[in-house]
Order: sequence, then C-alpha cells, then structure tokens
Amino acid sequence: MDDFTMHPFDAGEDDRFHEECGVFGVYGAQNAAALAALGLHALQHRGQEAAGICSFDGRQFYTERHIGLVGDNFTKPSVIARLPGDRAIGHTRYSTTGGSGIRNVQPLFAQYTGGGFAIAHNGNLTNAMTLQKELQRRGSIFQSTSDTETILHLVATSPKVALVDRLVDAMSRVEGAYSLVCISNKKMIGCRDPLGIRPLILGDLEGALVLASETCALDIIGARFVREIEPGEMVIITDDGIESIKPFGRTASRFCIFEYVYFARPDSVFSGTSVYEVRKRIGAELARESGVTADIVIPVPDSGTPAAIGFAEAAGLPFDLGIIRNHYVGRTFIEPTDSIRHMGVKLKHNANRSVIQGKRIVLVDDSIVRGTTSVKIVQMMRDAGATEVHMRIASPPTRDSCFYGVDTPEKGKLLASRMSIQEMTSYIGVDSLAFLSIDGLYRAVGQAKRDNLVPQYCDACFTGEYPTVLTDQAGEPSVRQLTLLAEAR
Amino acid sequence: MDDFTMHPFDAGEDDRFHEECGVFGVYGAQNAAALAALGLHALQHRGQEAAGICSFDGRQFYTERHIGLVGDNFTKPSVIARLPGDRAIGHTRYSTTGGSGIRNVQPLFAQYTGGGFAIAHNGNLTNAMTLQKELQRRGSIFQSTSDTETILHLVATSPKVALVDRLVDAMSRVEGAYSLVCISNKKMIGCRDPLGIRPLILGDLEGALVLASETCALDIIGARFVREIEPGEMVIITDDGIESIKPFGRTASRFCIFEYVYFARPDSVFSGTSVYEVRKRIGAELARESGVTADIVIPVPDSGTPAAIGFAEAAGLPFDLGIIRNHYVGRTFIEPTDSIRHMGVKLKHNANRSVIQGKRIVLVDDSIVRGTTSVKIVQMMRDAGATEVHMRIASPPTRDSCFYGVDTPEKGKLLASRMSIQEMTSYIGVDSLAFLSIDGLYRAVGQAKRDNLVPQYCDACFTGEYPTVLTDQAGEPSVRQLTLLAEAR
Amino acid sequence: MDDFTMHPFDAGEDDRFHEECGVFGVYGAQNAAALAALGLHALQHRGQEAAGICSFDGRQFYTERHIGLVGDNFTKPSVIARLPGDRAIGHTRYSTTGGSGIRNVQPLFAQYTGGGFAIAHNGNLTNAMTLQKELQRRGSIFQSTSDTETILHLVATSPKVALVDRLVDAMSRVEGAYSLVCISNKKMIGCRDPLGIRPLILGDLEGALVLASETCALDIIGARFVREIEPGEMVIITDDGIESIKPFGRTASRFCIFEYVYFARPDSVFSGTSVYEVRKRIGAELARESGVTADIVIPVPDSGTPAAIGFAEAAGLPFDLGIIRNHYVGRTFIEPTDSIRHMGVKLKHNANRSVIQGKRIVLVDDSIVRGTTSVKIVQMMRDAGATEVHMRIASPPTRDSCFYGVDTPEKGKLLASRMSIQEMTSYIGVDSLAFLSIDGLYRAVGQAKRDNLVPQYCDACFTGEYPTVLTDQAGEPSVRQLTLLAEAR
Amino acid sequence: MDDFTMHPFDAGEDDRFHEECGVFGVYGAQNAAALAALGLHALQHRGQEAAGICSFDGRQFYTERHIGLVGDNFTKPSVIARLPGDRAIGHTRYSTTGGSGIRNVQPLFAQYTGGGFAIAHNGNLTNAMTLQKELQRRGSIFQSTSDTETILHLVATSPKVALVDRLVDAMSRVEGAYSLVCISNKKMIGCRDPLGIRPLILGDLEGALVLASETCALDIIGARFVREIEPGEMVIITDDGIESIKPFGRTASRFCIFEYVYFARPDSVFSGTSVYEVRKRIGAELARESGVTADIVIPVPDSGTPAAIGFAEAAGLPFDLGIIRNHYVGRTFIEPTDSIRHMGVKLKHNANRSVIQGKRIVLVDDSIVRGTTSVKIVQMMRDAGATEVHMRIASPPTRDSCFYGVDTPEKGKLLASRMSIQEMTSYIGVDSLAFLSIDGLYRAVGQAKRDNLVPQYCDACFTGEYPTVLTDQAGEPSVRQLTLLAEAR
Repeated sequence: MDDFTMHPFDAGEDDRFHEECGVFGVYGAQNAAALAALGLHALQHRGQEAAGICSFDGRQFYTERHIGLVGDNFTKPSVIARLPGDRAIGHTRYSTTGGSGIRNVQPLFAQYTGGGFAIAHNGNLTNAMTLQKELQRRGSIFQSTSDTETILHLVATSPKVALVDRLVDAMSRVEGAYSLVCISNKKMIGCRDPLGIRPLILGDLEGALVLASETCALDIIGARFVREIEPGEMVIITDDGIESIKPFGRTASRFCIFEYVYFARPDSVFSGTSVYEVRKRIGAELARESGVTADIVIPVPDSGTPAAIGFAEAAGLPFDLGIIRNHYVGRTFIEPTDSIRHMGVKLKHNANRSVIQGKRIVLVDDSIVRGTTSVKIVQMMRDAGATEVHMRIASPPTRDSCFYGVDTPEKGKLLASRMSIQEMTSYIGVDSLAFLSIDGLYRAVGQAKRDNLVPQYCDACFTGEYPTVLTDQAGEPSVRQLTLLAEAR
Repeated sequence: MDDFTMHPFDAGEDDRFHEECGVFGVYGAQNAAALAALGLHALQHRGQEAAGICSFDGRQFYTERHIGLVGDNFTKPSVIARLPGDRAIGHTRYSTTGGSGIRNVQPLFAQYTGGGFAIAHNGNLTNAMTLQKELQRRGSIFQSTSDTETILHLVATSPKVALVDRLVDAMSRVEGAYSLVCISNKKMIGCRDPLGIRPLILGDLEGALVLASETCALDIIGARFVREIEPGEMVIITDDGIESIKPFGRTASRFCIFEYVYFARPDSVFSGTSVYEVRKRIGAELARESGVTADIVIPVPDSGTPAAIGFAEAAGLPFDLGIIRNHYVGRTFIEPTDSIRHMGVKLKHNANRSVIQGKRIVLVDDSIVRGTTSVKIVQMMRDAGATEVHMRIASPPTRDSCFYGVDTPEKGKLLASRMSIQEMTSYIGVDSLAFLSIDGLYRAVGQAKRDNLVPQYCDACFTGEYPTVLTDQAGEPSVRQLTLLAEAR
Repeated sequence: MDDFTMHPFDAGEDDRFHEECGVFGVYGAQNAAALAALGLHALQHRGQEAAGICSFDGRQFYTERHIGLVGDNFTKPSVIARLPGDRAIGHTRYSTTGGSGIRNVQPLFAQYTGGGFAIAHNGNLTNAMTLQKELQRRGSIFQSTSDTETILHLVATSPKVALVDRLVDAMSRVEGAYSLVCISNKKMIGCRDPLGIRPLILGDLEGALVLASETCALDIIGARFVREIEPGEMVIITDDGIESIKPFGRTASRFCIFEYVYFARPDSVFSGTSVYEVRKRIGAELARESGVTADIVIPVPDSGTPAAIGFAEAAGLPFDLGIIRNHYVGRTFIEPTDSIRHMGVKLKHNANRSVIQGKRIVLVDDSIVRGTTSVKIVQMMRDAGATEVHMRIASPPTRDSCFYGVDTPEKGKLLASRMSIQEMTSYIGVDSLAFLSIDGLYRAVGQAKRDNLVPQYCDACFTGEYPTVLTDQAGEPSVRQLTLLAEAR
Repeated sequence: MDDFTMHPFDAGEDDRFHEECGVFGVYGAQNAAALAALGLHALQHRGQEAAGICSFDGRQFYTERHIGLVGDNFTKPSVIARLPGDRAIGHTRYSTTGGSGIRNVQPLFAQYTGGGFAIAHNGNLTNAMTLQKELQRRGSIFQSTSDTETILHLVATSPKVALVDRLVDAMSRVEGAYSLVCISNKKMIGCRDPLGIRPLILGDLEGALVLASETCALDIIGARFVREIEPGEMVIITDDGIESIKPFGRTASRFCIFEYVYFARPDSVFSGTSVYEVRKRIGAELARESGVTADIVIPVPDSGTPAAIGFAEAAGLPFDLGIIRNHYVGRTFIEPTDSIRHMGVKLKHNANRSVIQGKRIVLVDDSIVRGTTSVKIVQMMRDAGATEVHMRIASPPTRDSCFYGVDTPEKGKLLASRMSIQEMTSYIGVDSLAFLSIDGLYRAVGQAKRDNLVPQYCDACFTGEYPTVLTDQAGEPSVRQLTLLAEAR
C-alpha cells in the first residue's frame, strides 16, 4: 500500500530502500488485538512510522491507529482493551507523507451497504490514480490519497452482492502488487496479487488462523506455519474454517527478490528457504564472483552482516565487527546545530579502530541506493586506518524505482542509474567495488540462473523489467514494460 | 451536525442542553486560519470538545483537527503555519461520541470528481440515516457516523456538474436543521436550512467576507456585521464577490428560540435583538408572571445572570451574587475518589453565605433539564441559611428532545416530561417553582404572542411541535409532527 | 513565598496584581491528598501556574508537583494514589520564574537530621537574600532561588533539637510575611507572621483539622470554620489534638487589605466579614465619594462585579453586564500572528454593545496597575457607542510595590506612581476617573478611618508604609519604612 | 553515582548487570551543550533512563534534565539553545528509583557560598549514608537520596576556601568509586577515585578539553584521545589550560574488569586495549578452557557477539547468528495481557531456526545474573531444533553484588551465589555449562594471571573481594573486605 505522491527521500534516514508495510490478521483467538500487537511488533522492520489495529467483537468494529512504534503505542492494557473481539487485523507503515498524518494510517475501515469492512494492505496498485478518477466520476469521495482507499470503493461500488464476490470483482480491476488482510462482521479474508509480489503466509495458533507478511510474526506468538498464500489466491476464513479460491485466472510467481536481499527479517522463511541462509549464500556467491586479497571482512551493520559472514566463510577470511552501531538512534534524533550536522553518520555508526587499523578490509553492504552513506562509511574506515577498502554489494546495482510498495528515490537519484561501476568506485572512494550479478542472486535463492524470458522473481529494481503494466506511470517514457506480463494476468 | 447515535448524557457536565456546534468561514483575508482560530474561540461556548480548521491556499487544502479547546490547539504559530491560504473554514464541536474520536471532528474534507470540498455543519439532519442507507446501496462508503458525511456523499453523487448545483441538489434531499460553511478550490459557500433553525450571519473584514454562527465571532476580529443569511438562502462567495440564491422554494423562519434562552453568547445579536436584552426581558416577564415576596434575587451563574438582573429590576428586589462559580473547573476535573464524589457541584459552585443567610431568595436559572443540579444548588442555598427558596426558570418546561443539533437527554430523562410543576417543586425542594410561559417567552423575543398555527420560532423542546418531518425517528410514536411543516418546505 | 528575582510582568496576563500562593493542610483524614486537591482547587485563584501536594503515611513522605492547574493535575485517581496517608499539605503557586521550572514549585521537602520536613508557604520574606548568604557561608547549599528554601535551612541548622523549637528559632530570624503549613512525621504545624499579613484559617472536618488560606477551601470539603490563626501564632497539630503557642513576642494585626479588594474569593470570610460584602461596601463608598451623573453601571468582569453592584445600589443606577468575558481563555492562548496581536484584550472581553450604545456609563474596576488593560477596555466602550465613560476604581491608587508575596511590577511601572489623577484620566481616555480614598477603603472593611499612627491593615501598596523592615531592599532609597514597625515585632 | 536504596530488579529488562552512569564534560568549545548531547548519546549504553546537561555561559548556569533517551530529549535546537555557554557537563543515568523521578537526575547543581557548582558522577560512594547522617546533624538538608548530593554538601561545608581545596577535602572523606566531572564559574574539574574503579578519559577537540567515561564519546565529536585520568588524579581545567594534582596520597589501579566484559562499548579503548579485542580474547580463552564438540557457535546478541567470534575462531567452528534480536523493543514495551506475558523473551529475541535446527550449538553469553533469560533462550534453542546446547559464559560466575555504581540484584538473587555449576547446568537446561576462569579473564585483559594479593582490577562481583571498606554495609556479615584495601587509600 502506498500513497500516490512520491515520498521525499528522508536524508536523515539511512540510505536504503524501505519496505512500506507489514500486515497481520488473526481470526478466532481470545486477545486477538494483543496477538496482533505482537505480530506487528515482529513486523516492525517493514514500517516504523505508524501502526494500526482493527478488531471486531461480534457487534462492532474498533480501530486504533497511531504514529510511532508498535511497542510505544499498542502495548498498554488500556489500548488493547479498546480493541475487543476474537479477530483483528493490523498494519505497520513506513511512511506518512507530508501533512496527511493519521488519515493514511491503516487499517482503513468503511461502512458500506453490506456492513463494516476493514482492510490492511501491503503493496502498491499501479493503476490506482486511474481508478480513483473513475470512481470519483461515479460519485465516490476520497478521504485520503492512499491506494488502499481505492480498494474500499471498488468493493462498495461492485454490482455483486456477497462480500467475497465484491472483493474478487474489486481485485480484478486493480493492477500492481498487493497482499491484503481484511475483516468483515463474518470473515477474515487474505488475498495476494496474481504474481505474488509481496509475501503473505498462513499460520495456526491452537485453532485460530493467522495471516502475516512473514513467518517471524508467527514465531513471536508461538503459531505454527501452515503454508504461504499462493499468488492470485484468496482465502476466506470463517467460523466454519478456511476456504481457498483462485479467482484471477492465470497467475505466475514473481515474488519480490529484494525481500531476500534486505526487506525481510533474517529469521523469516519464504518458500522453505530461510532469508538468513539466502543472505549467507549471497555473500558466498559474491566472494566467488568478486574475491579480493584482503585481511578481514567487515559488515555494514546490521543488514550486511549475514552476507559478510557468508563472504568471509567462502573467502576464508576472518569476519569482524569493524563498525559499531548505536542502536539508540531513534527517528527523533535531530542534529542539534548546523555546525555539527556534518557528523551525521557518526550518530549511528562508529569505526572499531582496533579492528580496522592497518588492515585491508572487505566492506559488505546489502545495496547502494543514493550512495551518500557509503561515501561516509568508507571515509570512516579510511580515518580508522584501513589501508585498502574493497566494497562488495550483496545485490546487483539498483537502477530502477519500485512501484510495488517500496519507498525508493526516483530513478535519477539512484547512484547506479547515474554512474558506471568505475564512476561509483571513484565516487565512493573505494579501492574496488563489486556488485553481485543478477544470476548470482538467482543462484543464491536456489535457481540455476535467471530465466530471462519469464523471470522467476520480480527484480524490476535491478532490471527495469516490471511484471505488471504501470498504468499510472503511462506518460513516463523511461518505464520499460514486458508485454508478456500483461499476458501473465 | 450531529452523530446518529444518541449521546450518553455526561453526568459530569452541568445539567443543561448543549449546543453542538459553531461554524466560521472567511474568504479573501491574509491569515485566514488565524482569523478562523479567533472566530472559533469566540464561538467556543457552542462546542468545547473539539475544533478544526480547513484552509485552501490556491493549490491545496490543509486540515487540522484537535480534541480540546481552540485556545489550547489553534494558537501556536506553528499550527497556523500549517494552514496557509486566504480562505478557511472552522468548526467547534460539543461532543465526540464514544471511541470514534478525531474521526468525527469537523471540518470534513473529501476529494470528489470536481476536486476538493470541505464542510462545517451546525445542526442535525433528521433523515440522515435513511439517506445513508440509500447512499451505501449505490456504493458510497462511510468513514464516520456523522450526518455531515452524508452531505459530502450527496454532493459527490449528484448528477449535476457544477458544485453549487450539486450542493443545491444535495440539500434538497435532506431534512432537518443545518447552517453550513463550505470551501472548494474556487468558492466559499454558506447555506441555511429552509426554516433557518440554526443561525448563520455574514460579516465583512476590510473586504474579506466572513460567515459565522454568531455576531460575537465578528466582534473578536473587528469585522462589521452585514446581515443574517436568510432561511433557505445559499450565498456563494468568490473572487468576484457574493451571490445569493434561494433554491429551496417556500421557506419560513423558525429560528431556534433556545438560542435566546441559553445557547448564544449574551453579546450576540440576532434579528437586530441583543441576546442579553432578550434575557433581561425574559427575567422581567418572569417577574411579572410569577412574582414572589422575597428579599433578594440570586442568579445561578453564569447563564442565569441576565434574566436574574431583569427579574430583580422588574420586581424591585436587590440583585446579588449568592453563588460563586469556580471558573477553573475544566473538563478534566475528575473527582479523585469515590468517597468524595458526592461533593460534585461544589467543585463548580459555592454558596456566598453572607448574601444568603436569613434571606428569602429568588433563584433564577435558565432551564431545568434533568433537575439533578437544581436539587444540589437548592440544598446548597438551604445549607447557607436561606429561609425560603423560590426558583424561577427563564424558559418554559423543556419536555421534548431536540433533533436539530442540540445535545439533549432522551424525553424520559427530562424532568418536566416526567413530573408536574408540583412534583418538581417537591423534588427540587423549593418553596415555589415557576417557569416562564411560552407566550411570555415569545413576548421577550418581541412577539405579541406565539402564533400557534405557524409558530414564529422553533420551540419543539417546549411544545413537542417539530417544524420538520423526523424521518429517522419514524418508528417512535412519541414524536408529534406538524403536517403544515412539510408544506413549509 | 516568592523568588528573589523580580518577576517580569507578563503582558499576556491581565493587568492586575497577583496573589502568589495558596496553602492548605489536613491532618487525620482518610484521603488526605484528595481533600488537599479539592482545597487547592478552591484556592486556585491564588496561583494558577503550578501546584503541589506532599503527604505522609506514617512511614514515608510522598510529593507530587506539577506545572498547571490543580484540576488538570491532581484529580486522577492514579495521582492521588501516589499520595497516601492521613495528612497532606498543598500549595498553589502563581509564578514559576524563567527556566527554574518545577524546582521552585512547593511544597518543598527536605531530609534533615530530625527526619523529613515539608513546607508550603504563602508570603515573602524580606530578608531572605541576606539570610541565604549567611547560610551559604556556614555550608548550606541552595537548590532553588525560593525564600521558602531559606526556612528549611534555618530549621535544619537551628541549634535546637525539637522540631517546634527549631521552627520557632527559624521564624524568629526571618522578616516579612508568611503563612506556613508544614508536616513532619509526627505533626502538622501552621504559623502566621507576627503581623498576620497573609491569611491562614483553621477548620474541622469530622475531627480532622484543616489549615487553609481562605474559608472557601473549607466550604468545598464541607469542613467547619473554627477560627483564624492569629498573627504570630503557631499551632501544632498531632494525634493528641491542637496546641497553640505565641513565640514571637509582641505582635499586631496588619492583615493585607488588598485581600479584600481583589485577592480573596468573594465567598471567603475574614474576621467575620464576607469579602463580597466588603466589596459591595467599597462600591457604595465609591458612589458616595465620587458619584457621577450616568445611565448605567458596568463592572469590569469578574473582579469588579461586587463593587459595581454596590455602586449601582448606592447610586440608584441600573447595573448591567456591559462587558462579556470569555472564560475559555486559558494561559495557553497565544496570539497566533503578529498582525493580530493588537486584538489582545478581545480574546478575553467583548463589549455588550446593546447595553453600552448611547449610554453614559460608569465603569467599575478593582484597581489600576499599569493601566494598559484599562486603556483597551475604555476604547472598547467608546467603540461600542458609550457617550461618556466614567471610571471608578474600587481601591486607592496603587503607587508602591508589594514585598509580601504579591506579584507586582516595580514601582516605576505602576501608573499611579508615574501620573497624577488628571494625567491618568487623559491617558486612559475617560471622561472622569476616581479612586476610592484610603479612609473610604478602611470604612468599607469596618473601621471608622485609617489609624495613621498604627494602621489596622497592611496598605503599603497604597501608602508606601511597609509594616516590616525590608532588609533585602536596603539599598533602594525609594522604600520608606515605618520605624514603629520594627517595634511591632 | 547511585541511590542508597537498592533497585528493584526490573524483570522486564534483560537479565544483566547495568552500568549506572556515563559522564561527559567539555570546556572551551562553542556549542558546548550540543557536544555534550552527542557525547552522552555515545554513552547512552551506560544509562538509558534519564539524562541531563548543565552549561555555564560566563554569567549563569543552565540545567536541563529529562527522563528518557538523549536522542529524544537533547537534540532539538530549542533545548540546546536553553543551554548556552562554552562549557557543559552531562550525565546519563540508568535508573530513577521509585517515585523520586526527576529529582535524582544529574547533573546536580547547588548554590553554595562560593557560587554555583554542578556535578556529574559515575560510581557509588560506600559511606554516603554515614556521611549524610553526619551532615544532617550539622544542619545540611537533603533533597534527594542520591550519594552525589552528599558530595555537594561536603564541598559546601568544607572549611577550605578555594573550590579545588574544598573538593579535595570532600573527596578525602568519601569511600567508594567515583569518576566526577564538575563545573564552576571558572573551572571544569575531573576526578577519579584513588583506585580508578570507574573510567574517565581526557580528550581534545581543537583546543577544547573533553572529559568522558569512554573513548567512544570522543569519536562521535571527532575529538582526539589524550590520556586517561589516573586513579586518584584530579584535573583542573581553566582558561589557562589544564593542571593535574594527586591529592589523595597512595593509590592503586583497580579498574572495574566488568567494563571489559559487558559495560563498555566494544569500540572504546581502555589502557590502550580495545574492549572489542579483549572480548574476542575472552572468547578465545573460553574456547581453550572449555572447548566442546559442536557444529556452530551462536552469540546471545548483542553483547555476546565479540566473545562468540573469538570463541569460533579459536575453536575452528563456524560462527552464525542463531538468535535474531528485535531492536524495536524499547523500554516502553509492556506485555499487553497477562495471558501472553509468558512470551516475554520473544519480544526481544527469536530463534533463527534454519541455523539451529539439527545442530549441536555453543551459545556464548557475557554473564549470568539471575539466569531467567538464559532459561528462556535455551528453551528457544531447543524448540528451534538444537540437538545439543552448550553454554559458555564470557566471565567467571557473578556471585557478589557490586557497590560501586552498578545495578545488581542482591547476592541472594544471583544464580551463581545460589547454585553450583552443576545445579546451574540443570536449572538452565543445557548439556554443558562453563564459565571463564578468573585467571582466563585476567589473561584476556593482558595480565599473566590475577595477582591474588593485590589484584590488578576490581573483580569483587566475581570474587567478593571489595577493594574499599563498605562502611554503609557494615552490618552485613556477608561482605568480606580485604584489609589491605584500606591501606591502599
């Protein structure tokens, strides 16, 4: 789920792509809202700006939405007590654009002719603006700029009667990426787009059914992993159990490969493969593809750590913590005066000089976005006495924006879209720079190589090959689209 | 504007009817939002629970809505700076029902096919639930339970094209009481229902046009009073000036007479008559109708004061402050323990014993709602040594609920609907009790008498004669409806 | 109790003297802290900036001190629950100077060799700076700039052993005005300076003993008034009852006459005389001394109201509310922009034009401090159509600063110290201006006239005759001191 | 600095010892307070409950103290602007006991006869209660229960005149551990107790002198490390430079060895040795002493990580992240309901099942305090499929409480003081459990072995051999004291 407006990249944040949302739902459990709070806490890495929970107690819907962390807003017993019922859905959100504030925080709730309906959405619709104009022409009004509200209106205005039929009807009209969790007065529904771009998994907690973005949200509540929701699948959960339908015709699996690279928590598992293991294999592939003579392998913490361990193992080099991260840096850390703003990166990272000094180091990071942080960290390594700095990136160059629910700067701001490897090497100030190859990445996730005709994953941020039409972006000539992808739907 | 759900009467509040809203708008003024904040501050007595302002700066709409007083939320320069533009509308609200919180605070904003549209509403629609069901059937979704959102949907789904035509179309379908102030990207619109139940006045501030519930909101910003918006009138304000239309056919004036009794600020003026003067005349009428031998006239502060002054003057009795009010009692005063909850009224009022002791007193209050406060105040007078307590009420007995935007307990909770005067005399514990006659009230507002065929004011809370159909209340047999009122529309 | 630093006069506040503190104590009552919260609420007019309560439960002292109103900070059950015990003292405070914040809020607590000791102080010591230097020389350290802390140190460093002896010793060394309420692990102690400048009264609540600044604090909890603490009296309350000592030798009564004029609540009673009645008599005296041909008497609300009623009665003129006060103006009302800052007074007051227009009005106010508000209010009356404005002030001209616990601007800022009556008349813009004579004021409080040799009250703000030496002000030549006052001690 | 009252161990916190304070000071730098905020941010791991800064601008002292993180309270420009001046001291604090709240947050400031004096203290005085009673007997009063206030009083009551002489006099009378940073109107003073138990280092930032608990606070502001303040050294920093005195006679170095084990940040350096390197060497020593046949080495994050890396390297086993830590767990995470409280540890940690499953694991943690967390983490490993769990602890068993400024449970609550290794093995549920030997620890810090006659470090928590007399604990028979330590003073 994303706003239509492009997010201003927050320079105060670290220089990375950001997953925009995590979703969670539970049906048939006492303390549903408390479980949702825990699940969202485990999904906090998918969105730290705001969170919300909506519950239903058999008669009424209750919603709490707050700016800030789950742990700061959804743990007081008084808050949970305002969310009674045996089913609840929740949402964590990365970004609240501009002044829109609480209005865009999910879950969104609406009263329509069939009753109440609440929805939490991870992903982004690529024809939401087009649909919104159409809906407005027929009389729908919008309270937010969120594409998720578009779904609510499509449900409400569907000519179908039953909620599931309305939702199928609605989702047949949208393009893009979505993993949805919804509740009505009778059901909890989970749904994943026909390409399964964003994740959604099913769990079981002593009979209560759970939907979540990642398996780590099952672990925290002690739920058992059942299976992944399939691309194009809709599951309908009621008191009578779970029903599955596949209403969207032809589907294909194009799961976001960047979930493995950076977004997902390392202890989560997709398609039976641990994210942590993939990251270690990425590091090993990288060592094989771009080995270098050096003394030590240093991760850029914390996201580069598994790849660095894998790199060190494969390269037979020692692994060491050469950069110490200060975990007390919250979102609220404001550099107090202009004159000390330049120390920026030091608020979060410090060189562990004893490890670095006099060494040839391999610095492993997960990706390069705008490159600003890389420049500072490399300088920090030089200042700490590194004699050589070799940077190894655990993914291919990110040259294209994501339109599927990830906060990315526009293409022109992406370093890899502006510079060659050689130019980047010089800009970042390293002795050598290497990215993982796209085939190396596919090998790490268990494929022999990328199937260039029908890629097994969505890798548009690396290749520019978007797996869906981008209707709202139609005017923009820079967007290449694979025609075969329309077919895939 | 009101929620559909009946408000639980807040026993912590004083025992009175409560006006639910004040509205304000300004077009063509620098610092429009700052002026709106001042105007709302002057209208704070019309709603103390929440307030909101929406501005437009030629490109975008900005909204700030907060629980709490205007003076606590809308005076920081940083807040006003988030509301740029030369036009703004604002709203103060009495009550935010239950957990719905900020969602129901106005102005409401919507993006519809014609663009952005914001609305602030004083009043209550009596067929909003019926309309809402209809709108939902055609696909509209509701975010709140507010009848004001119904207006937004009627505008958005109107087959007309131009905004004014849409709004006329919308308001043709609603029943009840409304004074509206709206802004779009081109216009500010003011509109009053065909019976003019709730007030709306027009002012001028050095060329900028102002709409407000009461004249006191003009005084605070130094604006000049121009005229009242007429019943059934819609004024459209643009850069080209002001245009007036009367789209609703036959209208009649049925202004809420309780505005004179209690709701309006004493320094406001309606139809050329000062509210303060009316209240003094009410006191004089009351003295003439129900004089009594006594030593002193005591107001129940602050609302009973003008009537008490009028009573004392007409009766030739001294006027004295026999009850001292503690103005530091905010909404947040919670009785800290159960064992002292019984002192309730003392938090707000204390007997001025030196004035009371050994005296026969006339206690003048504006109205009796549930009677609970009256019982306590009379006891307080007895405890302070009053030898006789004669209560005089500056209005007729309030026997019926209001459905036009006033927070009233249900009929069965109204003391005057449950008891005869004699029973009330005994229940309240006074030596004598008299209410103003309905004709006395009409005389005080300048009429010879009430025209029982076509009453000059809405006095339904005293007479049960509702001037509109009450579609949403249709099932309730206790609601008598004047058939001629449908005709009036 | 006051800080040594002179308070910057807060122009945002209304243009009046401000009482700086109210004190309250209760011994032997369940829910002592809840009773203290109620008592402080009744004393809120004596200090609105901050409040504190300290309780003792037989083993430990508990303190809560908060910036803001009593009703906003001391009514939640959770707060009261943090203040267990059957005895508690409390304090309301007008001003927290500068950045010192919570540090200066009372009650102050200290652990000294005899155990814990907490103190709440109304008044101001005139030799506190001198004593503080002395105490520091012997090794005492100060956490605040409050003169109350000086008392704590004098108690702690006294050569005496028993607490009462220590306190007597301490108070023998201070000069100025003080009404103290203290608790130790065994006792509650009340004490008033030898001239009884600030008030302190004793009450009884079903056997529990109560000390408070004013009787209105007894009324709110339903306590019975017992008597006033006498000038120079110290009462020691223990489980065995109350003991009274008079340790300070010769005393005289010099109660602050301004308590009658403005500080005290009108429903409070001092020396058997109701404050309200005194104010009405002040109005009557004023009418006799400075009658004028006019149509109507208008109070400047709310403090001028009783005097205006008395004036109107004595003058045979009608009394009317010609100025409406907006009670929603909290301390937090910030004028949002510079360009509208000039409307200042309108935030709080509005002319009731229907009453004023075309009339010759007598405007009754309690005092003139700097005159800035008077200028604005008179202009407001002119703008509302008053044909003549005659201002009558319910006290003599205030020409001198108070050093006894009242927040006053320095002498040079007092209008009456800078201008003659004639100049003030012109400056304020009235047709005539008259102040009550000093003898008129004495008559209103029940004296035949002021005894110029040994005045019956402290009237230094009118006469410059300070009843104590002003050691800390010694350098300032403008301070005249009555030599006989030293004798009075 | 510590309170006298023993802290209730917060079960919600992780089961570790907690350093209680970090101190920082800077003299002669523009933006001194901003630098202090950064320095405290780098020292945040030494105390997360509260922080304060006191600055001096040549005329006046300014203090800001807040509950919460440095990054949340000391980064707004408005806060820094309230702390002007070219010198500032700061303090982070672990714990604010009970209701005492902000009162105990440092720096403490006092006005004494010599002027203003502010102090920040890391450590704990072991005769503070005794001194406090003495000081109270001579008339000093205490506002807090903090031992730091005792130092203020000793300075204030010293018979000496000059501040340095007073401070020397004061520190001659205290026992225990202290690293102090103080400012007066002329000086900044740093001081370390005669055994140098707590750290204090000196840095230089372009001529401005800096004092801090650890070198990482120099790194963040780009200051150069100069040297450590020596045990028993006092440095006096003025506009004329730095002067060093050694006023306390005989001293010895008994630096807290637990700083290496857990307290200090890994990138800090003491005595030329990097904390990170020591921890790796600890891991290596542990592998040598207590090697085990296993598949993989897993750190308990984050504090066990360097030792685990060292262990893995020395043991030739792979190092892997088998436990994922959720860094979004703030202090505010409250388990929302009782029924899910048992999931406790999962809020912070999750097993990385793919790494654990089917493996024999070595789990490396820094210490065991009460053992509650260890039990849960081991169970988590078993649930994730570990076939064997061997726990290796990077320090000797912690059998005794610390009285030198570390928050430790009382001795009876320490697992190692209640159980033998064998009992602990069974209680924690591991296949084997081994602690580092005390000599192994000494080897890791670069000593051949522990000098049992005069140990090179304070290791009382492991050995019960306290290097100072524990006057306040005199009654407690369980405290063994080395007589030679009195001699060392």
